[in-house]
Order: sequence, then C-alpha cells, then structure tokens
Amino acid sequence: MDNPVLVNVTRGPLVESRHLGALAIVDASGKTVCAIGDVSARVFPRSAIKPLQALPLVESGAADALDYDDAELALACASHNGEAVHANAARVMLIKAGLAEEDLECGPQWPLRMEDAAELIKADETPCQLHNNCSGKHAAFLGLAKVLGAPTKGYTLPEHPVQQEIKSVMEQLTGDTLTSGVCGTDGCSIPTYAGPLPGFARAFAVFGTGEGLDPERASAAERLYEACVNEPYMVAGTDRFCTTVMDAFRGRVLVKTGAEGVFCASIPELGYGVALKCDDGSTRAAQVMMATVLEMMLDLNDAEAKMLDSVVNPVVKTRLGVAVGEIRPHAELLAALKSSLS
Amino acid sequence: MDNPVLVNVTRGPLVESRHLGALAIVDASGKTVCAIGDVSARVFPRSAIKPLQALPLVESGAADALDYDDAELALACASHNGEAVHANAARVMLIKAGLAEEDLECGPQWPLRMEDAAELIKADETPCQLHNNCSGKHAAFLGLAKVLGAPTKGYTLPEHPVQQEIKSVMEQLTGDTLTSGVCGTDGCSIPTYAGPLPGFARAFAVFGTGEGLDPERASAAERLYEACVNEPYMVAGTDRFCTTVMDAFRGRVLVKTGAEGVFCASIPELGYGVALKCDDGSTRAAQVMMATVLEMMLDLNDAEAKMLDSVVNPVVKTRLGVAVGEIRPHAELLAALKSSLS
Repeated sequence: MDNPVLVNVTRGPLVESRHLGALAIVDASGKTVCAIGDVSARVFPRSAIKPLQALPLVESGAADALDYDDAELALACASHNGEAVHANAARVMLIKAGLAEEDLECGPQWPLRMEDAAELIKADETPCQLHNNCSGKHAAFLGLAKVLGAPTKGYTLPEHPVQQEIKSVMEQLTGDTLTSGVCGTDGCSIPTYAGPLPGFARAFAVFGTGEGLDPERASAAERLYEACVNEPYMVAGTDRFCTTVMDAFRGRVLVKTGAEGVFCASIPELGYGVALKCDDGSTRAAQVMMATVLEMMLDLNDAEAKMLDSVVNPVVKTRLGVAVGEIRPHAELLAALKSSLS
Repeated sequence: MDNPVLVNVTRGPLVESRHLGALAIVDASGKTVCAIGDVSARVFPRSAIKPLQALPLVESGAADALDYDDAELALACASHNGEAVHANAARVMLIKAGLAEEDLECGPQWPLRMEDAAELIKADETPCQLHNNCSGKHAAFLGLAKVLGAPTKGYTLPEHPVQQEIKSVMEQLTGDTLTSGVCGTDGCSIPTYAGPLPGFARAFAVFGTGEGLDPERASAAERLYEACVNEPYMVAGTDRFCTTVMDAFRGRVLVKTGAEGVFCASIPELGYGVALKCDDGSTRAAQVMMATVLEMMLDLNDAEAKMLDSVVNPVVKTRLGVAVGEIRPHAELLAALKSSLS
C-alpha cells in the first residue's frame, strides 16, 4: 500500500514538492484513533523515542543516585542544538557519574546553528562529543551503566545491559517483539529497532498517562514527561520546533523529533500517543504533519493557536526574506484527522 | 498519475526512507528516449537550467565585451559553494562591468562548507551577496544588462530585458510557452518558470549538440558547455556532485543541480538531454538518480566507473564514520533505463 501525500510545498501558483507519509494516533489500550497510510510498515523511530529510552535511568534509581535535575533529565531526552548550555549540561551529567567526554561513543558533531558553531571557531576549537545532539542521552546511558555496575565501554552495543534494558522497556510499551532482524544502527552508534507506527503511538500514550504501567515505571514516565515540558529548551534549543511547541503548550503535550522524518507525541489530556513518519525523511514535512495533528485534535487558546499557525504553514522565503511559497498540510491529512474526531 | 519510487535509503536490514520521482531523456528533435513517472507535470527547474540562462550573455557579445574567461563563464552557470575562489571570481566579474557587490539582488548566504564559513568567522566577517551560490549568474545578468544598456536595478524582475531574453531562449529550447501562471520566484529572487521535464531534457539535448539552433546560439551553447566541463570546480566546488562527475567525465557530460531535487544533463555523444525531479525535493536522491542514468547510458572507462560507483550508492554513516546503510537506485529505475536502451 502506498502512503498518501500529507504535505505540499508551494512556490508561486504551483505545488513544487510533495511529501508522503503515514501516521497513527492510538490510546494507551492500543485502540487506534486515527491511521493514515500503511501503518503496518516498520519504521526506525530514531531519536523520537528518546523520552522512552530514558525510563530505565529513572526507574532504576540511577537518576536520583546521580542527582540529575529536571534540566538534565530533559537533556537525556533531547536532540539538542549543541549550544553551550547543552554541551555544558552534558559535561556536568558525566562528571556526576565520575566520567568525561572521552567516555562517550556518539562521535563529535558541529552545533546545528551557525551562531553556536561560530563561538567554537572564534575560540579556535572544533566540536567534541558533548556537542553531538544526542550527548545528553549518551551521558544518561553512561550514568545508568555506572549505577548498574556494568562496563561503561561498549554501552552503545545491542548486547550491553543498558541497551537490553531499553529494549525490554520498548517491547512492553509498544507491545512489539524486537529482534536483530529489525535492528539498525543509529547515527550516534546505538541500536534502533524498527516497528509499526501504532506501537510507538501506543508507547507514547502509555508514557503520557501511565496507564497499564507498574507504579515505578508510571512514576518514572511522569517525571520524564514533566522534565521535558518544563525544560523544553533543553530538549532541543533556540528556534527549534520541539522547544517552540512545548513552550507554548505549557505541559499539555510532549513532542519529540527523530531523524529521517519521524515524530512522536504524548497528549495526556486526550489519552493519546502520536507517531508519524515522512516517507522521504524530511523534517520540514514531519513538523507540519505533527503541528496539524495538534491543531486538529486540541482545543487551543490564543497563544497556542498563534504559535501553531506559524508552524502549520511555514513560509518559503528568498534569501532576501521575501515570501514566495509555503509548506502546508494536504487536504487528505486534514480530512483523515477530521473524520477521526467525529 | 503517481510517480514511482526511484531511490531507497537503507539502514541495517531495512529500507528506512524512499524517494519518488520522474525523469525524462529526450533527443534534440524532441523524441523521448525514456520517460519515468508523470512527465507531463510542470516542475520548477530552479538552478538546474543556469547553463541555458547564460546563453544571452554569450550570444549578445556581452561576455566578449566584458572579457569573461572560461572560469567566469562556468561561474555564470554555477551553484557554487561560496568558497573564497568563487566569491572573488564573482567580484571580478562585477568589476569588469563597472559594478560591485551592492548591485547584486540575490541576497547574502553562508558558504555551504563549514571550512569556508570558518574562514569568514575567523576574519570577523559575515557572508555577503558574493557568497550566495548564485552570485556568478547574477554578476552575468548585471553584465548583460550593462551591455544591453538596460537599467541594472531591477534585473531580477520578470519584466526586465535580461529576464525577458532568458524567457525567450527557454521557450525556444524547450518548445514550451512560459506564462505568468507558471512563474514562481527563485530563492535568489529571479523568476523561475515551471515546465514539463521533457521540455527541459530537450533543451539540454539542443544545448549539448547545437542541433536546430542558429549559428550564434549554437556557438554560444558550445562555448558555455566547454567552459563548464573544463572548469567544473567553478560550477560547484569542493566535494560537490557536479564537480566530481564533470571532473571524471572530462567533457563527455555536463550535469547541473537545482534546488528541490531537480537535475539536468547534456550527453552530446548520445545526443541526449536529461531532466529529472525528486518529488520531495531531496538532493541526495536526485544525485543518485542522475548518477544511475549516466552509469546505465554510457560506456565507462575505469576512472569513470570508479567515480560513479561512489555516487550511485553513497554510504550512510554514523558520526564516527561507520557504514550503517546506503542510498541506492530502486529496481524500477534500473529496469526503466535498461528497457530504454534495448
């Protein structure tokens, strides 16, 4: 089954580019509220599931043993810009575990914004692993390894206790069985297990509501949810979709981006989780899909509506800043979401 | 009609992302050699037609009057990296016309490579319009305006004589009529007219062979073709697909990228032009499509085959450089190209 066009990019009077995708909205019992496209296909969730991957850190007691605060827990769930604040916070997380930058296995990465790259260049520095957008997650993995008494070296390998813990959590929350046959390697060297979108959507519904979880896991999920929505700058950074959306929604939703056009969300007040994938891997389209879901599913106050307006229909501009097109949800996406509401 | 998947991106054992597209290979008479997908749909050619947009500069005598050399003509056809060599050459082109950076209307842009951005940052500079990837084309437009005795201000507007000249050339070469109803504005502020892929493919067949052109236009096309294939570094730059391919093919092909997943090529020895568009606007996929066309259509020597191998199947790597996937042509693309050869 082919997926439908969910997002169009226009230029002047015409559609210039189009993005196909699939999307699932599911409640914590596993009931599908909305399914668009082939939701049985397996999708690599990449960084979109970082909040779920942080559960073992909290429920094991490691987060408390290491004295991680809310900002650090948010960074453990982050795909951050590599701004100085992010890199420094990751360094502190490592210090709290008696470790250092050299223990990371995620590889170095330039900060995403030119302003932050320029700071390094002016100081005659090159980026280190702390600037990797996943450094908070990796620092948390290392902290968990320490508290578990597991070796820190090799913490990114599928057979390492940290990755085994995460796999077990993901299997419970998604209801899926994760084998080596669906395992790829993420850009930061950890395993990523592909699964159907409804499984990830259900996992985010469970994460946001705690339904069906034992008290320790439910409490860990609640703590991570609160950390992310209270510290949205640590989850992404300046001018980033996840930060902008969580900032405006003040606790109503958690959204998390992943590479190659994946996006997940928890909407606790509805009891729903959302998981979507843009077929071609485009973030610009995945963001418009997620913004459209939030706009259609939630009653919005003025501040929320105004913020969503700018991310549902981002403007395409010339290098002189003149608007010459837009990125916008396709009618099929709007119709499918509308019918799931009735 | 939906376009087929032409390129897959894999991660570990699975396909992670897929790219749809359309493609036309046409000869100078307009005969279609190969058509994949909906080739009747209008596509914005963006920067892929820069070599054609430079024809009025040469055939008007302006290139000679301004004493532009081959490197400068190649820069007039370029989407360059904004390296120091590119910015300086654009500055010289403007000086030759008695103009300066302030006369450009393309807007400033950071150099594409971090190394080149770092040079500016270390010198405490910000990028100017000379670093815009289109600065050579814009310098050439300004030079043409000067020689035509037209105003230089407003040279980017559809009604300006320079843009009217280009529109007329494009109509002849594509056989299409270009109206305001198919006109959008490019990222560098000039008009871009959408047309069907076979028209652009035919235009590149005509450009590469001179067939059907009056002697002045044929000679201008030959001079621009030679300039691009002899100075491929000026057409793009370090580590760029267009430069790598033209460097290895030593005059056998001209390839030119455009924003939003467009690619065009001239293959004079076959008498063919190629035009393709990746539906979602991805350059990574458009490059694999173009590389696959060249690999399938041409008899290759060892150097050409080795170069193409690396661009037909680019490796997806972790931030530590470990190969974890690849970008590769879909079987449907290979089959369609194969059947067009038989």
